[in-house]
Amino acid sequence: MAKTAVVALGGNALIREGQSGTYQEQEANATAMARSVCSLLRTGWRVVLVHGNGPQVGNLAIQQEEGAALVPAQPLFALGSMTQGQLGSLICLALHRVGDPWIIGAVSVVTHVAVSADDPAFDNPSKPIGPFFTAEQAASLSAARGWVVKEDSGRGYRRVVASPEPVGIVETAAIRTLLEAGQVVVAAGGGGVPIVRTATGYAGVDAVIDKDYAAQQLATSLAAEALVLVTGVESVLLDYGTPQQRPIEEMACAEAERYLADGQFPEGSMGPKVRAAVRFLRYGGEVAVITSPELVYASLEGTVSQLEGTVGTRIVRVRPTVGAVGGRW
Amino acid sequence: MAKTAVVALGGNALIREGQSGTYQEQEANATAMARSVCSLLRTGWRVVLVHGNGPQVGNLAIQQEEGAALVPAQPLFALGSMTQGQLGSLICLALHRVGDPWIIGAVSVVTHVAVSADDPAFDNPSKPIGPFFTAEQAASLSAARGWVVKEDSGRGYRRVVASPEPVGIVETAAIRTLLEAGQVVVAAGGGGVPIVRTATGYAGVDAVIDKDYAAQQLATSLAAEALVLVTGVESVLLDYGTPQQRPIEEMACAEAERYLADGQFPEGSMGPKVRAAVRFLRYGGEVAVITSPELVYASLEGTVSQLEGTVGTRIVRVRPTVGAVGGRW
Repeated sequence: MAKTAVVALGGNALIREGQSGTYQEQEANATAMARSVCSLLRTGWRVVLVHGNGPQVGNLAIQQEEGAALVPAQPLFALGSMTQGQLGSLICLALHRVGDPWIIGAVSVVTHVAVSADDPAFDNPSKPIGPFFTAEQAASLSAARGWVVKEDSGRGYRRVVASPEPVGIVETAAIRTLLEAGQVVVAAGGGGVPIVRTATGYAGVDAVIDKDYAAQQLATSLAAEALVLVTGVESVLLDYGTPQQRPIEEMACAEAERYLADGQFPEGSMGPKVRAAVRFLRYGGEVAVITSPELVYASLEGTVSQLEGTVGTRIVRVRPTVGAVGGRW
Repeated sequence: MAKTAVVALGGNALIREGQSGTYQEQEANATAMARSVCSLLRTGWRVVLVHGNGPQVGNLAIQQEEGAALVPAQPLFALGSMTQGQLGSLICLALHRVGDPWIIGAVSVVTHVAVSADDPAFDNPSKPIGPFFTAEQAASLSAARGWVVKEDSGRGYRRVVASPEPVGIVETAAIRTLLEAGQVVVAAGGGGVPIVRTATGYAGVDAVIDKDYAAQQLATSLAAEALVLVTGVESVLLDYGTPQQRPIEEMACAEAERYLADGQFPEGSMGPKVRAAVRFLRYGGEVAVITSPELVYASLEGTVSQLEGTVGTRIVRVRPTVGAVGGRW
């Protein structure tokens, strides 16, 4: 039976630093992303791909505001569903482009992620989204649409929304069915469309779910073996920014939790990733990896990297006693 | 073994005449749409839902132009994928809202539909899309983006694109897998993202595939039993606009082809629907239905409608000899 890896790719993987986000730029970046996924398919892994959508949903929000005099702006959660269609298509086309003949099929599922209506995050919206506004614009949008707006880094006012915890993936059964049929599945893009349970079904809510937490929730729901969090750096660093700074090659859950408690991993970057990895393992996962696209395969398989001297970070439930096993698995 | 129906819903089913397209309007319309689908689920049909996207992709195109000074406009086929995410989410949430307990799951698949690069439609772009422009704007956009623009009904200039024939559905296997697992599948929305085969995979092309033709292609690929084309009127009319005008309750393929040849069905409305129905039956389908949302169930099952005196149009391969069978199936 093939093993399943849920691979989460950073929001900036498709629109990189300094790029404006043309289709051609995103297409080229998606091709690089697809290559990294195909390295797993070749060795028999089933893959679910979770992508970020930060730059794309930001662009969409700007377009919605610019066109607001002519056509109604859609709610934030609907913009999230739109980027799932947009990037799901882009990534599936890229997988077809580079994946043949390993890919039986690639399919993008518009995914809804349940959150709790009483998640404390709703009392403290903190995630800035969309364009910057002047104080006057911000006040008027706040009054007209019920937005919470906050001053952001001296550059103006932005809407802020809650970032609640994911508690379930509505499409889990459909995604599992597709994986079992050999499909590569693109799912929970941008953290998924946030929904809450109502008396009659589900309702969309304007919030942003952390993509890495959504990927963990999906990996846990699928009982996947591996959670791979792809980022811009090769590995998690200890004592970051000090003379003792060093990469972590492998750590056990308990070590990771100790480092988290010690404040080793900043909240804006590695903190949520390490926390997602730990939660995945505590809920039954086998291995979590945090690394750059180039090192995904080597880090997951525990083989020697082709890039000499570089290494990704593996997080495992318990580290084997030295000498007890030959390889790292 | 359950039978499969591919149900195509008109582009105006979610944004009706006179509506601007707020989320709330579309949500209410989607709920009505979902009710009509659930009437089929209750009697054991497997359902694939194909929705139109005309008003939504039109709104998106306007927003892209209005925001073009700030963020790059995406190509038309990417806008199509965005409306698949948007409306797929909307429709799945509506299905969950009204479908319980008949719905095991509802899932939206971002669908790519293959067209031939040498389809003659590409030599004669005829489908207007997006906003109206002045002659100067049109000339400048044409030069900058390679658009074909045409004067449209005295109201200004619009971009026109090709409307090629669908020749295959990339996600057929995934959709079949989901149907077999009992999911209601939303697919090929807006006719699907049009793609052409290239030496290295697929590439998106700016075109609009007729939603009814895409639904027929999907129904044929899935070997579905029924194709249901939902529209604003109860039935197909013969001798439309004359004193002899009368609804068609049932016709055989050969009759439909004769009427098509006689010019009974105008190209802008019933013509493509009847042609899609005939093609579906010629390629092995059992029954095609053209009717309003309220009459879908009665027309498909061949039972007496609850709305007295109204009837949908059924198209079958061969009509049974009168008296030879008890029911219409």
